[in-house]
Amino acid sequence: MVSVPPAVLGPRPGAEQSVTVTDTLDPRIAERLRRDAEGLVAAVVRDHHSGDVLMLAWMDDEALHRTLTTGRATYWSRSRRRHWVKGETSGHHQYVRSAALDCDGDAVLLSVEQVGAACHTGAGSCFQHDLPVAGQVAR
Amino acid sequence: MVSVPPAVLGPRPGAEQSVTVTDTLDPRIAERLRRDAEGLVAAVVRDHHSGDVLMLAWMDDEALHRTLTTGRATYWSRSRRRHWVKGETSGHHQYVRSAALDCDGDAVLLSVEQVGAACHTGAGSCFQHDLPVAGQVAR
Repeated sequence: MVSVPPAVLGPRPGAEQSVTVTDTLDPRIAERLRRDAEGLVAAVVRDHHSGDVLMLAWMDDEALHRTLTTGRATYWSRSRRRHWVKGETSGHHQYVRSAALDCDGDAVLLSVEQVGAACHTGAGSCFQHDLPVAGQVAR
Repeated sequence: MVSVPPAVLGPRPGAEQSVTVTDTLDPRIAERLRRDAEGLVAAVVRDHHSGDVLMLAWMDDEALHRTLTTGRATYWSRSRRRHWVKGETSGHHQYVRSAALDCDGDAVLLSVEQVGAACHTGAGSCFQHDLPVAGQVAR
C-alpha cells in the first residue's frame, strides 16, 4: 500500500469553509438507492492503490451526500446512532478517489486513499477473522 | 480474471447427496455476528484472482452456514425473501476460496472463483454506476 502523508492530502486551513455543501443528496442518486429498514445502504471501502477491501460501513442519504461533496468518507454509525467522518478521532482519514453504486442500489463502493490503519483495531483491513470453508476441500 | 470452466469446478453427479450439511451455523461464528433489523449481515464478494470487488449480497445465519459448508456462495434475497445459490439459474457460479468476518461482525468478505459474469446485468462487477465525487477536485 502506498502511504500518503496527511500533509499532502489534508484540507488546507479554512478549506472547510470554502466548500459549498448543500443539505440533501442529489435526487437522481437518491431515487436509485434501495435502503434497508434503517434507511441505510452498505459502503464497501477498498484501497485505491492495492485494491484491498479495507472495511464495510453504513450510509444514510446524508452520509453519502457528505462523502460525495467533501471527498471525505462519512458514515452512519449503527451503534452510536450518529454520523462520523472516518479519521475524525483516529487521524486515519479516507480521501475518496472514486465512488460507484451497484446495480440494485443497495451498496456503494468507495476507492480511498487510506491514511494509517483502516480498522479501529490497528489492522490494515477489518476482515481479519478467517472463517473455515469446508466445501472447498471436498470439491 | 482467470476463467475456470464449470466442468472443472462443478459438482460431480450425485455430489449434493454426499455432502453432510448440518442445519445451523457454528455457534462460535453465530455469536460474533451483528445482524441488522432483518437478521442479515453484508457479504462483500471479490474475485479470488484479480481482487476486484464483484458484488454485495446479504446473508442470514443459514446462508452463511450453507456457504461455509458447501463452498458455494449462498445468499438471502431481500426482495424475493428466500435463499439463493449464486449461479443456480444463471450458471454463473461462485466457488468460495476463502471467507473472513470483519471486526464488528456485520460483514463477511468472500473470495470466489467467479464463473461468467458476477452481475445479473452481464457486467463483470455490479458496481457500474459511477458517482461524482466533487470534494476531490477542490482538495
